[in-house]
Amino acid sequence: MIKARIVVTLKNGVLDPQGKAIEGALGHLGFDGVGQVRQGKVFDVKLEGDDRAAAERQLAEMCDKLLANTVIEDYDIILD
Amino acid sequence: MIKARIVVTLKNGVLDPQGKAIEGALGHLGFDGVGQVRQGKVFDVKLEGDDRAAAERQLAEMCDKLLANTVIEDYDIILD
Repeated sequence: MIKARIVVTLKNGVLDPQGKAIEGALGHLGFDGVGQVRQGKVFDVKLEGDDRAAAERQLAEMCDKLLANTVIEDYDIILD
Repeated sequence: MIKARIVVTLKNGVLDPQGKAIEGALGHLGFDGVGQVRQGKVFDVKLEGDDRAAAERQLAEMCDKLLANTVIEDYDIILD
């Protein structure tokens, strides 16, 4: 069993309305000094087998096909 | 300026319908050997100032008040 964490974040320069909304909400809650907030997704995936190279290739393909919109998002694959 | 990443994930035992849907979709796309998928959120936050201890306390408070539903979610704060 291979455990992996995939972190999907917006590419630099892509507007993040959700992040902007959170910045505003934090300000209303009295948090000062908040420069910027950007929100992304994280996927914790368990894969059968123990071939790490094959797992990395499969995870990248999962990102390209489903988990990330590679036009506006980047992804990082971290194997346990 | 302090940069931090906050990772919010569902607590163990909490049902993750989104993760289940992704497992199913990956199966339909022909990915086999997918054991489990759990989805969470990630926030990249920039804070003014450079007092790391104060930043950590502020970030934890942000999680408790807004970024995480601490009844069903855990959060990790990683300072750069």
